[in-house]
Amino acid sequence: MNIIYGVIGVSLLALIFALVKFVQISGKDAGDKKTKEIAKTIHDGAMTFLQKEYKILLIFIIIVAAVLFWIDKDPTHFRGESMLCFLLGAFFSGLAGNIGMRIATKANVRTAIASKKSLNEGLKVAFSSGTVMGMSVVGLGLLGVTLLYLWIGEPNVIFAFGFGASSIALFARVGGGIYTKAADVGADLVGKVEKGIPEDDPRNPATIADNVGDNVGDVAGMGADLFESYVDSLIAAMVLGVLITTQAPNAVILPLILAALGIVCSLLGVALVRTGKSGSAAAALNKGIFGAAILMAIVSGFVILKLTGNLNFYFSMLAGLGGGVIIGLSTEYYTSTERKPVQEIAEASKTGPATNIISGLGLGMISTIIPVLAVCAAMGIAFYFGSAVTSSAIGGMYGIAIAAVGMLSTLGITLATDSYGPVADNAAGIAEMAGLGPEIRKRTESLDAVGNTTAAIGKGFAIGSAALTALALFVTFSQVTGMTTIDIIDHRVMIGLFIGGLLPFIFSALTMKAVGRAAEDMVIEVRRQFRTIKGIMEGKAKPDYKRCIDISTEAALRQMILPSVIAILTPILLGLWSLEAVGGLLAGTLVTGFLLAVFMANSGGAWDNAKKYIEEGNLGGKGSDTHKAAVVGDTVGDPFKDTSGPALNILIKLISIVALVFLPLFI
Amino acid sequence: MNIIYGVIGVSLLALIFALVKFVQISGKDAGDKKTKEIAKTIHDGAMTFLQKEYKILLIFIIIVAAVLFWIDKDPTHFRGESMLCFLLGAFFSGLAGNIGMRIATKANVRTAIASKKSLNEGLKVAFSSGTVMGMSVVGLGLLGVTLLYLWIGEPNVIFAFGFGASSIALFARVGGGIYTKAADVGADLVGKVEKGIPEDDPRNPATIADNVGDNVGDVAGMGADLFESYVDSLIAAMVLGVLITTQAPNAVILPLILAALGIVCSLLGVALVRTGKSGSAAAALNKGIFGAAILMAIVSGFVILKLTGNLNFYFSMLAGLGGGVIIGLSTEYYTSTERKPVQEIAEASKTGPATNIISGLGLGMISTIIPVLAVCAAMGIAFYFGSAVTSSAIGGMYGIAIAAVGMLSTLGITLATDSYGPVADNAAGIAEMAGLGPEIRKRTESLDAVGNTTAAIGKGFAIGSAALTALALFVTFSQVTGMTTIDIIDHRVMIGLFIGGLLPFIFSALTMKAVGRAAEDMVIEVRRQFRTIKGIMEGKAKPDYKRCIDISTEAALRQMILPSVIAILTPILLGLWSLEAVGGLLAGTLVTGFLLAVFMANSGGAWDNAKKYIEEGNLGGKGSDTHKAAVVGDTVGDPFKDTSGPALNILIKLISIVALVFLPLFI
Repeated sequence: MNIIYGVIGVSLLALIFALVKFVQISGKDAGDKKTKEIAKTIHDGAMTFLQKEYKILLIFIIIVAAVLFWIDKDPTHFRGESMLCFLLGAFFSGLAGNIGMRIATKANVRTAIASKKSLNEGLKVAFSSGTVMGMSVVGLGLLGVTLLYLWIGEPNVIFAFGFGASSIALFARVGGGIYTKAADVGADLVGKVEKGIPEDDPRNPATIADNVGDNVGDVAGMGADLFESYVDSLIAAMVLGVLITTQAPNAVILPLILAALGIVCSLLGVALVRTGKSGSAAAALNKGIFGAAILMAIVSGFVILKLTGNLNFYFSMLAGLGGGVIIGLSTEYYTSTERKPVQEIAEASKTGPATNIISGLGLGMISTIIPVLAVCAAMGIAFYFGSAVTSSAIGGMYGIAIAAVGMLSTLGITLATDSYGPVADNAAGIAEMAGLGPEIRKRTESLDAVGNTTAAIGKGFAIGSAALTALALFVTFSQVTGMTTIDIIDHRVMIGLFIGGLLPFIFSALTMKAVGRAAEDMVIEVRRQFRTIKGIMEGKAKPDYKRCIDISTEAALRQMILPSVIAILTPILLGLWSLEAVGGLLAGTLVTGFLLAVFMANSGGAWDNAKKYIEEGNLGGKGSDTHKAAVVGDTVGDPFKDTSGPALNILIKLISIVALVFLPLFI
Repeated sequence: MNIIYGVIGVSLLALIFALVKFVQISGKDAGDKKTKEIAKTIHDGAMTFLQKEYKILLIFIIIVAAVLFWIDKDPTHFRGESMLCFLLGAFFSGLAGNIGMRIATKANVRTAIASKKSLNEGLKVAFSSGTVMGMSVVGLGLLGVTLLYLWIGEPNVIFAFGFGASSIALFARVGGGIYTKAADVGADLVGKVEKGIPEDDPRNPATIADNVGDNVGDVAGMGADLFESYVDSLIAAMVLGVLITTQAPNAVILPLILAALGIVCSLLGVALVRTGKSGSAAAALNKGIFGAAILMAIVSGFVILKLTGNLNFYFSMLAGLGGGVIIGLSTEYYTSTERKPVQEIAEASKTGPATNIISGLGLGMISTIIPVLAVCAAMGIAFYFGSAVTSSAIGGMYGIAIAAVGMLSTLGITLATDSYGPVADNAAGIAEMAGLGPEIRKRTESLDAVGNTTAAIGKGFAIGSAALTALALFVTFSQVTGMTTIDIIDHRVMIGLFIGGLLPFIFSALTMKAVGRAAEDMVIEVRRQFRTIKGIMEGKAKPDYKRCIDISTEAALRQMILPSVIAILTPILLGLWSLEAVGGLLAGTLVTGFLLAVFMANSGGAWDNAKKYIEEGNLGGKGSDTHKAAVVGDTVGDPFKDTSGPALNILIKLISIVALVFLPLFI
């Protein structure tokens, strides 16, 4: 048991680290009145969104908690135990997101000001704020799961904790995704296209909403998404671990120990992040990420050998860690301006927007190959070594869950680099809006450019880990229900499979439609302000930023209800008909959702960078017809990569968790 | 046994009917020297494509035949039996396609000339040529399966006949799809966009290739696709029928009898097609289709009751027939200019091409709901009634196969209305190219407009029947292999499921890329001709049509090799590793392929009609910015709806057939 207290100690360490960084960043210079005012508007906008979101969330959580209490009929525990787990999960995930948003909206302006001194200073502030988010997520996640395990003792009940996290993730990712793209597309359509003013121009009424969106979608949304993957993979592995304790006595606590180890490695990785003489921010971040991963790959071997007596689960874990790296690299390949795929899209833009779109869609589809094969390979390897421990399939399934845990073990630092992106993006925006001069603007933009690459890799990683986590949840589902087979020959399973395959299409369509509608509202409002508020274009009058923020907020929260309800109700309704159908449903959603998510994320990322490639002066540069064609692709890609694609990460995990938590209803 | 000779008699009747119509149409007036010359160029182009295709096909067929001979080690039959079935299947399918192409390229000009007299005369010629194709397909399909059954006695071997048909379908659908869109996109990009000359203008060097493409893709491709579905569903039902002969003695021959009945109903339906006083061509075609379906629904009830003593299989069949109708109607709803979805895309075009694209993609995704639920419902109902006969799952599986047979039973007339479309399209083209005057142009265009709707419904029907057929093949696969379960909890099945889900994405990406590349070649050639051949634009010099036809032909045949090889080798390679994985593969490809196919077909159809809706004078009409935005969507939609989408129909059936035929290699 002592080792469990060690785990709790490590998770507290992560939280203390986050707290120290939080205080440090808060103490940094936030510049003059102008920069402070801009930062405050962004901060207030982000907080307004959170508060409004919390109101709706509260209703949702009360309803779900009541249902959980009502269906909780397990006589071995006191009634309401799973309800309490659920509430705690929602609270912890919400807390992590709140901390992340607070620090991101503090760090953006401080990054801009720190860039006055040097690139390295700017990098330090932006990345530090990322570590606050990263460490809060892993600290709270691990702490929550470990405490509940100590208290309840049976990992199965803790799934409700994961469900709480899923609920927050749903609202943060889907709502946040709609918010950010409604603001972005709306701001661009009127500002750039109609009025011809640059990105982040303070005369654009939607520009603050756009910057708020970066925080809402990319910080809070991404954080909640990965918080969910993190805790879900831990719980799934623990539940499966219970089933193999005779052959592997430490199987239940091994996931917790690996997670704790991962936090330590991440903290050491964080220490490695600093720009060298060359001053490359990208190299600095890579040093941290790969340093942590290599460290983890070395240390965990010894730990697993000591705990289990052999290295089988170590190889299972490595399969997950390796799969994550491969998916990240493949994302980088398909979305980098320096590689052939993106340049081919740019080439295709020469013959107009239609060929740009066809080319981008084709690229996204073909880019699914490596991630799918990586997940298959990770699954196969993890299963092979896992089953060697127990000489049975159940050990292999545990191995798959350990692969997911392995992939997510260094989340503390990978998430830090993800959250770094929007902070740098915001810093560049504030530098422009406050007119901090070309030197600082250039530095913040170079920080931002690195952020784009880390964001792309981070997206690939988020999708891959969601898929592996969902796979672990699926396997757990099959074991917890006591189903010996989920047989596709059975027509109920096949029907489930079809409906499961259908869900990601519905989900994507609804979220894309939501962005379209919300962006339209935004366009109308921005046009109205330009028309009715005299002197905006001359910079004499201030636009009504708040009104735009409100529009994004309300649209996002209103439009996310239907997809959310569908995602939650489908497994429940199908479960009331047939448990077999639910099995098919989970598998169908997992496969199609994973494919669509990779497709959409990579198409979107590639379109974005094809446009940037042309803006760098290639193929006619900015303003050419080729560039105009590329802008069309970029706009289509916005909801692809930042709304619908990421929302699918939530969907594939959420329906599994719903199926697991509402199991008492079905049997 | 007498009843079998009756079946053969009916299939011969269909062929005789086709022959008579063929002779009748050939005897019609083909106009003056000019129209004859244009028609001859299209005919020659189509035949050139077929001949070149046959050359590659021959190599392919020899290789496959050799492999089939080599792996044929069943001692109960003489060696080479399945090879002979394969060759016969390829020959029959090729023959049907050849007849269809010949009559279509005869009927196009004769339709244009007949329209001089009246709309009704034009309709009669175009529809008659469709019936030649429809009756050839069902006649040859049913004849082939029945003769082989009489000769071999064991339906299982006959799958090789289906594989032969699949091979032709692969070449015709994928190659034809690339051909037609390379020509279409290439012709439009230079002709309409750069030179500002109308569709089908004889000055455009690619215009004949474009018209050839309609025949190659929409006549031969669609015909081969449905020939494959038709024979595959029959064979699958017969194979499953063998397994339930103790409970249902006539189960093996029931599919053949239903097919024969369907042919008779189709022939009666054909007789109903004539325009009334109102002169609506659409109403005339609908009378035929629905007349045949209703007749079938009535008569088959009595036949099934007499043959099996109860109505269970009748309801299974009705489920398929009904599912087909629902999918057709849903396609019509999502792609008709008179409905909200298409009009919403047109509305979205007001804010530019990006919103047009987003809106179209969203529509395509959401439009998958009804077809998926229709297939699920058909599957559930067919299973329920089928299993009532045997009191076991195997009867239910047979019921699912019977549903597929039911859906395809009236193919004779549904295919006739499908093939009518490209003939009318060609007729309008010839009227324009030969300058037959505005009156005839208008009549042929109104015939063409109806053709667009029937083509859309036909596409939905082709997808739905491919899905149901693939489902029947999957069920058959599970029974023939003797696998008691295909368990998704098994990691091999899950890996197969992932790879199966991946295949349609790869297939779509490759076919879209192929169109892009081929269209580029075409653009370069058309530009070259305008530049180097003096007097084209003034109408004084004739463009080199042949060169454009050659480019489309070669590009299509070259680009189709890679996707074809992937489709055939994947199940074989996976099968050598694990039969479980193949089971997962089939299910994964079926689900994802069906979803993607519906998505792509409906997005494409809706974009096309959104453009037409604007061209009718709405939202600014032709030439407005809204129209330009809609043209972008239409161009993206071209490979979606006419290349990649339809190619998926082939993929989902082909891999099942490959798995079934190469089974001796795996076990």
